[in-house]
Formats: sequence, C-alpha cells, structure tokens
Amino acid sequence: MARINDHYLKLAGGYLFPEVGRRVEAFRVAHPDADLIRLGIGDVVLPLPRSVRDAMHRAIDEMGTEEGFRGYAPDQGYPFLQQAIARVEYGSRGVEIAPDEIFISDGSKCDSANIQEIFSPEARIAVPDPTYPVYVDSNVMAGRSGPADANGSYAGLVYLPCTEATGFLPEPPDEPVDLVYLCSPNNPTGSAASREQLERWVAWANRNQAILLYDAAYASYITQAGLPHSIFEIEGARRVAIEFRSLSKSAGFTGLRLAWVAVPRELEGRDASGAAVSIFDLWKRRHATKFNGVAYPVQAGAAAAYTPEGQAEVRELVDYYLANARALLEGLGSAGLRTFGGINAPYVWLETPAGTGSWEFFDRLLEESSLVGTPGAGFGPAGEGYFRLSAFSKRDRIDEAVGRIEKLRF
Amino acid sequence: MARINDHYLKLAGGYLFPEVGRRVEAFRVAHPDADLIRLGIGDVVLPLPRSVRDAMHRAIDEMGTEEGFRGYAPDQGYPFLQQAIARVEYGSRGVEIAPDEIFISDGSKCDSANIQEIFSPEARIAVPDPTYPVYVDSNVMAGRSGPADANGSYAGLVYLPCTEATGFLPEPPDEPVDLVYLCSPNNPTGSAASREQLERWVAWANRNQAILLYDAAYASYITQAGLPHSIFEIEGARRVAIEFRSLSKSAGFTGLRLAWVAVPRELEGRDASGAAVSIFDLWKRRHATKFNGVAYPVQAGAAAAYTPEGQAEVRELVDYYLANARALLEGLGSAGLRTFGGINAPYVWLETPAGTGSWEFFDRLLEESSLVGTPGAGFGPAGEGYFRLSAFSKRDRIDEAVGRIEKLRF
Repeated sequence: MARINDHYLKLAGGYLFPEVGRRVEAFRVAHPDADLIRLGIGDVVLPLPRSVRDAMHRAIDEMGTEEGFRGYAPDQGYPFLQQAIARVEYGSRGVEIAPDEIFISDGSKCDSANIQEIFSPEARIAVPDPTYPVYVDSNVMAGRSGPADANGSYAGLVYLPCTEATGFLPEPPDEPVDLVYLCSPNNPTGSAASREQLERWVAWANRNQAILLYDAAYASYITQAGLPHSIFEIEGARRVAIEFRSLSKSAGFTGLRLAWVAVPRELEGRDASGAAVSIFDLWKRRHATKFNGVAYPVQAGAAAAYTPEGQAEVRELVDYYLANARALLEGLGSAGLRTFGGINAPYVWLETPAGTGSWEFFDRLLEESSLVGTPGAGFGPAGEGYFRLSAFSKRDRIDEAVGRIEKLRF
Repeated sequence: MARINDHYLKLAGGYLFPEVGRRVEAFRVAHPDADLIRLGIGDVVLPLPRSVRDAMHRAIDEMGTEEGFRGYAPDQGYPFLQQAIARVEYGSRGVEIAPDEIFISDGSKCDSANIQEIFSPEARIAVPDPTYPVYVDSNVMAGRSGPADANGSYAGLVYLPCTEATGFLPEPPDEPVDLVYLCSPNNPTGSAASREQLERWVAWANRNQAILLYDAAYASYITQAGLPHSIFEIEGARRVAIEFRSLSKSAGFTGLRLAWVAVPRELEGRDASGAAVSIFDLWKRRHATKFNGVAYPVQAGAAAAYTPEGQAEVRELVDYYLANARALLEGLGSAGLRTFGGINAPYVWLETPAGTGSWEFFDRLLEESSLVGTPGAGFGPAGEGYFRLSAFSKRDRIDEAVGRIEKLRF
C-alpha cells in the first residue's frame, strides 16, 4: 500500500467545528423539538447585500453572451477587484499596498492553511493560544510538530498565551521563531490589537528576522478609533508581514467565498544557502500552480461591495452584528458572567463559571438551554475556562439566547 | 529571515502557461494589430448554458432573502450536488460511487495539486511524459524530487513515456512506485485509454499496492463506444484509485470553478508501522481543515447541468468543440502534418515538422500566423517534437487557423 503522510495521524481528535457539529447533531436527534440557537460557528445569517446580488446577476448574464463570456480568471484575481481592494482597504487609510500585491482567493481558511507551504518544513512556528485551529493543524499536517500531549498541545510548536494578563492577545516570544500567526481582531477572544502592540510585534519581527502571518479577517468590526485595521499601517511591516483579509464577515460572503492575501514585494525569506528569496515570488508560484482563480460572478459581487452603495450595505451588516455583540455583553454581564471582546469583533469571550470546564459548559448550555457556543478549550489549552459566543445571528435569537442564559444559575 | 521551502527553487522556469502568456504578450506589444488566434490554453469560449445561468440567478435571489440565505456550505459539497453527480456520472453507467464519496471542490487543478499532501513525503511518484505540469510541480514543491536536468526532468520522479509506440498513453512501470498520475482522455496528447489498458493498470496497481490518481477531467469528450468514462468502471479500481472530474470543459465552468474528487471508502494506504489507513478519512480531514466549500450559486448551477435540459446543453457544447477538433484534424492533415488525438478529447497532438523543436514551432506559428498553441516540450521531455492545439474556440476561428496553417510551408 502507498505510504501515507504520517503527520496527519498526530492530529488530535476532529477539527473543532465538526466535533461541535457532531455533538449538536446527537442532541438534535435526541431532542427533535428543541429550539436550537446556534452561536457556535461564526457564520453570518443576514441576506446578501443588494449591490452584491445585482452585480452577480449582471456577471451571470454577461457569461450567457458570446462577447461577455469569461473563462479562466487571472489566477491572482481580476485587476478590477485588486484595484478596488487596494483603493478602499489600503489607499484610503494611507497604506501602501499595490493592486498586484493582492492575491484574490476563495477564503482566508484556505489561505492561512496554505501559506506555510512556501516555508521550510523545519521552520519554527509560533501560534496564539487559544487560536483559530487551522494555523496549528496545517503545520502539524506539514510535519512541523511532534505529537500532541493530553491538553492538545503539540511538541515543537511555540504557544503564545492570550490570557487576561496579556489582554487576550499574544506577546512576542523570548525564543527565536520563523513564523508567527497573529489574529486581530482576535478569533476566538474578540480582542483587537492596539497600534502600540502591533508596533512592538513589527519591531520584534524586524529584530528577529521573523515573518508575521497577520489574519485580519474581522478588520471591519473595529469600532474604536486609533486601532489599526491593517498590519501595514505600521512602519516597517512591509519587510516582515503577510496579511489575510476576507469578505466573509463584512459583506456576508461565507457562502460565496472570497478573500485575499496581501504580500509586499519587499518581504524576503532565506534559502538553505542563506540567500534572500522573494516571498512574493514564492506565493505567486504557488498560486499559479495550485489555484485557478475565483468565479467571475463572485469577483464581480466582491467589487460591488466596494462601491459607495456596497460600502453602506456592508456597514449596515457589520453594525447589526456589533449591536448583537453589545446585547450579548450586557445580557451575560447581568447573568453574572465575566465577558471580554465583543467591542471590536463579532465574538464575545466569556469566562466559564468557576470549576466548569469549557466542554462541560458547552454540554450544559446545549442540554439545558438548547444553545450552541464554542468551548474555549477547542481553540487551545489556554482557552480552557472560557467560551466563545458568536454575534452572527438574528437579533431576536440573540435576545432569546440572553434570556435563556439569564435563567441558568451559575 | 525565515527559512523558505527550498524545493520551490528546483522548479524549472515558469509554470508552462504563464510562460506561453509572456511570449504572447510580448508578441502583442510588438504587433498590436495582429489578429491573434488562441488555441493554447484549453479554455472554453461558448456562453454558459441557460439552465446553469437560470439556477445561479435563482440561488442568488434566494441568498437575498432572510429564509433563503446560505452561509458556509458543507465543506464536502451540498448533498443535492453530490447526489446529482453520483446518479448521472456514476449510477447511470453502472458504477458504484456513493454521494458521500464525492468531494466537491473549486477545480481539478487544485485537487490534483493537493492530493499528494496526504501521502508520504518519501512516496515514489510516476507521471506520464508528456504530462499536465501540475502533477509534477506539486510533487517537486513537496520535496519528492531532486533537481531538474537540462530537459526539465526531475531526479527521483519516474517518467512514463507516452509516445507513438505506446499510443500516447503511459504503460505501467517496471519499477515499484507508490502513486501514479494517469490522465484519460489525455492532456496533452488527446488520446483516451481503452478498457483493456485500464484493466492492465488496475491489475498492476492491485499487484503492486500502488494508488492510481486518475484525472478524467475530459471524460465527456469520449465519443468511441466501449471506452470507460470512469476508472471505477474497471473491476477492482475501488481498492486502488482516486478519480478527478470537472465541469470546466463539459458545462463551460472554467470561469466558475467546480470539480470533484471521488475517493472510494475501500482505498487504503499504510502508515510508518505498516498499518492500513483509510485514504477517504485522510482526504476528508484535509478538506475539512484547508477548504471551506464552493459558492452556493456555483453548486446550484452545477446541479442544473445534471438536469435533462442541462445535460442536453452540455452535450451541445461538447459536440461543438468536438466538431472543431475534427476540423483541425482534417485541416492539419491536408497541410501535411501528422496528427493524433482529437477524437475522444478536445486536444489535437501534432508532430512538428522534422527538425523543428516544439518551442521553435510555437514561435514560428506565433510570428508567421499569429497563432497560439502549446509546445509539447512544455509538458515534458517526451513532448519534444509535438505541439498541442486546443479545439476550444469559435468555429470561424478554427477555420481561419486551419487556413493560416495550410499557407505555411512545412
């Protein structure tokens, strides 16, 4: 039999969300009449903006004509979309990212899973703890870790604790690493990095010749003035950072799939001989070889989200979910729970009641309140004792969820 | 600086099609008024079928409503599409593939590039020569080869020559390998494997405990009766094969992106200890971790291609391109060129005039006839002396191309 990639066998249990899904499915089978409220997976629920739909309809009609049909898209994305993103997301904030430094893709999950491929199998990796599981799992699959211990921590990875003491965001490590995954606004803790924190990271990366893999998929949820929306707002970041962005949570694209990676041309790694190699060139080669572009109607819809009408609709969506987050924060607070995040992010991070593990809290909420959240421990050992609730729901369901939680005794 | 994946530096030159693109672009700049005919990249040109467009419009309208909005798709695909594919592509031909053995994706390029990840870094790989470059490049990137020689052949890979003597399809190797990439109808040679040939491969793989990675992206172009459309038409294939299929060239989806991988549950590899491991489980884990589903409107459009109306439209598209291929075969023949393929595939494989290298022939066709094809050598050393012309064009352009070729003196 053909030899498999043994690193896959190190993966601890299932991927978090399928495991949550299995428990919910078992509950649904046992309680077919339960009125489930799902605040687990961070999936948007509001209808797709009109400007996006209109543009997609037009694109599909075009593809039904001799002249308007489009086959393979440029693998890096259509220039019309790269330009819209460069203008609205970067240029308007005074950030220098050229359109052709933007690689359009079908999702930040794919991008953040794939980016490790262009680095050495021996690269030393740091991840926040708790963290979005894809950063860890993709590196375990690639053989950059040893086995997992009983807590689900992998030997060889450097974990950067995000605790109450660190403001639920990671601090630079003391030991040398090659790649650091950062996420701000943070998934799962819902905290967003300040300019000062990011300046500290960029200075550290420049000093230590490390590369920051900066996931800002939730950037549009930043409400507080002065917080950077892009790592490239920080001086010196073009020499040390790659940024991941997405339309999933801004324009409601979870079911359409559109994201991008911004890779500055200055960014360099080194080969075995110590010579500098352009990271932009490596990623471009990967993209050309293993990806074939995003559907034209989806790119047309994404570009529409950057028109003035589209931007207004996006703002409305984001504000709706942010109001949900505020309602969650207030309701959980009055139920006596300590909460974090939820101001610059669509996630509320709550401390589970003393002595209650996070999977135990998950099961209790599911069994007693028909409520689905995500156990903090599923995001890493330092997530134990915490629980993530997503603000991506209809408002009446959020209010109903808060009512049910208030009825529980903690 | 962070250490890069040095294997990328072994990649010889650019990926073939970007290199073709660069030469064409240089020609366009030098000859802005030239009437270029592009028979290079195999990209469809006819409008998207009405049934596909109608279904996509409906899906987009649904996503504009509170009740009809859909967020993340199931990462393996919507059951409605898995079922349609299982029924029409497999069940109707008496082939046993269950809906949940079908993994919907955004393209066969991605799938055939990604599949190697679940196998050992030390797995021994065989590829046809000439071949679709993605099979080779994805394995070079993963470190399964040494450096390339002057012909572009990589040390450590096993090349299976597809020559006139072998009917332009590979024969099983004499040496042991773990994974074999097969492509039928073949890209680039345009030949399709007979039942007998596939039976020989399946028997060989069962005997040698190898896995066949069977790319049948062009299956809908098979016209001759008795030729298998799926490797799973062969007894015993479920224990040794993975199949790649696509809607790109059948329903005109190159600009929409939809494909699938069929992985039978019986298929096994072995881990370091020699224990059997389910390949289905490994691929499922990769899919869940590194992929996030295909856009709902695209899946809805794909399902429409499997309705009776959709199937009739697909047949019409395929027949149009097959008629083009016949016109190419006839025209090239009367121009005195020897041709192959083009009967069960949208590609014509022609022998370049004696003494003319395939890149030389490419440049000559471009300079003298403003005609773009693909040099055989770009697909591998055994492609030297051959040239691929794609039938994916409007008929009047095919006729014009034939006229120009007839004017050249060979």
